[in-house]
Amino acid sequence: MYKLAKLLFPICRSITGNGVRQTLNIIKRYVPDMNIIEVPTGTKVFDWEVPDEWNINDAYILNPNGEKIVDFKKSNLHVVGYSIPVNDIISKDELDKHLYSLPNQPNAIPYLTSYYSKRWGFCISELERRKMIEGDYKVYIDSSLKKGHLTYGEIIIPGETNKEIFLSTYICHPSMGNNETSGPVVVTFLAKWIKEIINRKYTYRIVFIPETIGSITYIAHNIMEMKTNIIAGFNVTCVGDNRSYSYLPSRQENSLADKIALHVLHHTHPNFNKYSYLDRGSDERQYCSPGVDLPVASIMRTKYGEYDEYHTSLDDINLISPEGLQGSYEVYQKVIECIENNKRYISNMICEPQLGKRGLYPTLSSKNSVNKVRKLIDFLAYCDGDLDLLEISEIIGVPMWDLYEIKNLLEENQIISQV
Amino acid sequence: MYKLAKLLFPICRSITGNGVRQTLNIIKRYVPDMNIIEVPTGTKVFDWEVPDEWNINDAYILNPNGEKIVDFKKSNLHVVGYSIPVNDIISKDELDKHLYSLPNQPNAIPYLTSYYSKRWGFCISELERRKMIEGDYKVYIDSSLKKGHLTYGEIIIPGETNKEIFLSTYICHPSMGNNETSGPVVVTFLAKWIKEIINRKYTYRIVFIPETIGSITYIAHNIMEMKTNIIAGFNVTCVGDNRSYSYLPSRQENSLADKIALHVLHHTHPNFNKYSYLDRGSDERQYCSPGVDLPVASIMRTKYGEYDEYHTSLDDINLISPEGLQGSYEVYQKVIECIENNKRYISNMICEPQLGKRGLYPTLSSKNSVNKVRKLIDFLAYCDGDLDLLEISEIIGVPMWDLYEIKNLLEENQIISQV
Amino acid sequence: MYKLAKLLFPICRSITGNGVRQTLNIIKRYVPDMNIIEVPTGTKVFDWEVPDEWNINDAYILNPNGEKIVDFKKSNLHVVGYSIPVNDIISKDELDKHLYSLPNQPNAIPYLTSYYSKRWGFCISELERRKMIEGDYKVYIDSSLKKGHLTYGEIIIPGETNKEIFLSTYICHPSMGNNETSGPVVVTFLAKWIKEIINRKYTYRIVFIPETIGSITYIAHNIMEMKTNIIAGFNVTCVGDNRSYSYLPSRQENSLADKIALHVLHHTHPNFNKYSYLDRGSDERQYCSPGVDLPVASIMRTKYGEYDEYHTSLDDINLISPEGLQGSYEVYQKVIECIENNKRYISNMICEPQLGKRGLYPTLSSKNSVNKVRKLIDFLAYCDGDLDLLEISEIIGVPMWDLYEIKNLLEENQIISQV
Repeated sequence: MYKLAKLLFPICRSITGNGVRQTLNIIKRYVPDMNIIEVPTGTKVFDWEVPDEWNINDAYILNPNGEKIVDFKKSNLHVVGYSIPVNDIISKDELDKHLYSLPNQPNAIPYLTSYYSKRWGFCISELERRKMIEGDYKVYIDSSLKKGHLTYGEIIIPGETNKEIFLSTYICHPSMGNNETSGPVVVTFLAKWIKEIINRKYTYRIVFIPETIGSITYIAHNIMEMKTNIIAGFNVTCVGDNRSYSYLPSRQENSLADKIALHVLHHTHPNFNKYSYLDRGSDERQYCSPGVDLPVASIMRTKYGEYDEYHTSLDDINLISPEGLQGSYEVYQKVIECIENNKRYISNMICEPQLGKRGLYPTLSSKNSVNKVRKLIDFLAYCDGDLDLLEISEIIGVPMWDLYEIKNLLEENQIISQV
Repeated sequence: MYKLAKLLFPICRSITGNGVRQTLNIIKRYVPDMNIIEVPTGTKVFDWEVPDEWNINDAYILNPNGEKIVDFKKSNLHVVGYSIPVNDIISKDELDKHLYSLPNQPNAIPYLTSYYSKRWGFCISELERRKMIEGDYKVYIDSSLKKGHLTYGEIIIPGETNKEIFLSTYICHPSMGNNETSGPVVVTFLAKWIKEIINRKYTYRIVFIPETIGSITYIAHNIMEMKTNIIAGFNVTCVGDNRSYSYLPSRQENSLADKIALHVLHHTHPNFNKYSYLDRGSDERQYCSPGVDLPVASIMRTKYGEYDEYHTSLDDINLISPEGLQGSYEVYQKVIECIENNKRYISNMICEPQLGKRGLYPTLSSKNSVNKVRKLIDFLAYCDGDLDLLEISEIIGVPMWDLYEIKNLLEENQIISQV
Repeated sequence: MYKLAKLLFPICRSITGNGVRQTLNIIKRYVPDMNIIEVPTGTKVFDWEVPDEWNINDAYILNPNGEKIVDFKKSNLHVVGYSIPVNDIISKDELDKHLYSLPNQPNAIPYLTSYYSKRWGFCISELERRKMIEGDYKVYIDSSLKKGHLTYGEIIIPGETNKEIFLSTYICHPSMGNNETSGPVVVTFLAKWIKEIINRKYTYRIVFIPETIGSITYIAHNIMEMKTNIIAGFNVTCVGDNRSYSYLPSRQENSLADKIALHVLHHTHPNFNKYSYLDRGSDERQYCSPGVDLPVASIMRTKYGEYDEYHTSLDDINLISPEGLQGSYEVYQKVIECIENNKRYISNMICEPQLGKRGLYPTLSSKNSVNKVRKLIDFLAYCDGDLDLLEISEIIGVPMWDLYEIKNLLEENQIISQV
């Protein structure tokens, strides 16, 4: 995964443009059956409209001495996203109005965008800014903002039912690591893995979209299937660093997605940070909005907005790590396995079965013989056809995956049946 | 309000009689459309009967030296409420059986009544009692107890719907301040203010009654309208001192009256005392009784029974203050405003609206641009047509009144509609 | 009760056999209308089958010197329950495979059984075992395992309705005190007492059965009546020592049996140990199994598995005491009284009744006159016909039995009626 991250990191992405296409084409090498969809500028999507497509070739600032003090080629964060073209010589005072820096993080280039209001600007570290001398500066942005398309990728992996598990990640952030090279990387590998699941019960809908306008566009075009089919969804973002695990609920807060996410995190990373829906800040804002009401939660490593490097050049490729990505990948795998396995079982017998005659119970009854088969008989005690595997595992206080083998054993012995 | 309190304080009130009429006539000067209702002695009201009317002109005790050691004209608490007339010369020992004092509060005259058992008696401070010399005493009570009326006041202020907010206070206590000159004073000013509310949604039913027998009588005569119309009610008592705020729930404990009272107190006076319905002791005993089941709670300053001066001459006009009355008045105003504003709204849009194009969102997206409009987008995130303003404000952790302006802005921009 | 305990203690009980019959015959002397039922070997009961009947006359081990180092006549725990007959001379090494002791409790004889797998064995204290010398040992078990019966006792005590309260205890443990001479003893005396209850509302179903196979057999033969009629049940076990009180819930955890048990223990023994259904280990495993779903909880003294002496010879007659048995007996009495009294009442009046005219309220109203009748008016305040006596007593924070007299007084005064 880290190799893919390194491939995707340098690309200058925005909510539209060739950086998005380039990113999707690399991902398609891993999951070839991804569809890449182009939505024309001007398409109405609910209260919004697909904006002009933005592309950029180069950008820089020359100081009065002709030195390149800002160079888009060195960091694509230097240009405010969706900057209109400019090619001018202006005073330092005039330039100052177009410069953005962070006085409290003097060595960081901030990340800024202006999608829906036409302006141009440069982002620069506070240290570089302080070094700027008096005089006239050449500002140059070779960008274009014209009719084009919004581009996104979609993978549908069919399962036994058309009920769906939904994964969404976004491909509109330029060169930053945790937020957001990590999301597309982890989702790409999850998609590869999902295709290999034997007897996949659910259908998987997986999208790589630009944030906000992308999710709104996607919802606008798919709302009926999504509302009908999706039983659990996750907005996959900030899954690359190795400092913590985080959970952000759906608006419902107790959907299947939420319950499974909490179950998995409690048993695998009990010190995870639990956020509220009020802390949201990504595409769950659209997926969970009134009227859309999808059960979309997020499991993250360190959450957007909660770490100093967030939305600056300090969130670079070194902030994420193979371990960070792998941890997220494994948690999402466990989540998906739990949903796939979350079935209801009913005992075929009244009263406890005689486990001993099937070799499932110690034949010599002593002080603590029951403890040896405690999980099995606890599981059986709640196999009433109403409680699902998640509910039973919560009641008896074990991770769901501890029950998979027991459940198989009991099914093989015809002691329980799936409802 | 304190001026009105000073006018009402000296009057000798009881559950019937001219003191009540005098009190209501003064209040009527402030709210001229109050109806004063007279209910004849002997009227059956559920398990009760309107008692004889009690009036009193004078009362005193002369000691063996002919000195007036107790004088009704100095404090109307000196006479046990509903004392029958007496004019006699009796021994100190005989007199003792008719005297009531508080050994633990030696300088306080206690407040006692005997509405439903004929007796006469004097209340006296323990200090005065201890000074009494041996010999014969003249006891004189010029009272009358005969067929007459129970008198109460009622104000109906119509609103857009006939659903009602109910305010009840009592006018049967003689010269005491917090319990109970304060209630009638605050309710009088609330009535004046309610009449000025523009686009008043609810109808207001406001009563000034004697405690217990008055509320029972009022319920007996109005039970069907009350049960049909009242959506929230408050028994306004002990609202004059400046030491604390208190809340006593309705029997249901989670009625609209309770939820709004708690919401307002949490946000305005978070250190308020929260009592249980088991601590009740006033007319909620009738309003909330099984079969009546009205949603009547109380917001108080220092609760009856919870302060040393309670039901003694120490609960005098100086125990209450302009600030004490004003604080109660403002809390009840906020409560009424909250109920009036507690509507449901639904977003007119699917997904988030594009706030930027309406000037409601920063056009430059940086690290924390969302925080500037956090309350607005949080409010919008829950405008699902099911949650009311109270529920949304509880979810997002802000006082309801912080959302009034936001709600208006969104309504004006046709982003939301009232359900 | 302790006298009965001493009678029952020495008998060698198992899940079948003459020890069970002997036990039931002694109990029948106290409750003569008990039916003793015999179920033949081979009877199919759900997934199980009634096993062969086991009886034993004698058993011992002679050491190489001819000394009896293990003697069934001294302790019936010495023989593994359901041991097949043996009469042999074997080496110490061979014998070792048939010996069971507890290295951590060197002076205790453990209690072991092997109902469903044919083997023979001796239980011995670790101390005795260590003393064993090299050489050949004579092993002798004069037991029989052949077609016969499973024996249990059943008492039905009719009440006004056919709704039932169910008590179950087990008579399959040999000479141990708390687990389980105490259960049959306490249940015997409860049965005697229940027969004396005047105006008994409920029917009582009381069974003395062998654990597991007995409850399964009993359920198999009575499931429809049990499911239709039983409103609360208790598995009475470990009720003899005097060290603690314990509560183990039914699988539902909030059945009437659970609520009443918790109520009684909270008010009588607030330091009781509260277990979860996951700590279960007796016949609730059958009674509460999916599909059976009976509301069967347990109130115990020190719970099986939670004390060192459990299932060893140290759980002897001295571990239980008259006080221990009496405490359990009284708690179960209170539980039964609570269920019998747990009715709904409705006030016959709207608003509070005038208690004063009935002599139920102080006629002189002073500072704290209400407190004298606080429980009565609190009870009345919740007599809405929906809440039962248990719910009201929980709300007002008093034990149910504090309300019995009040309820009678109000019924006599026709202020309330039973619903």
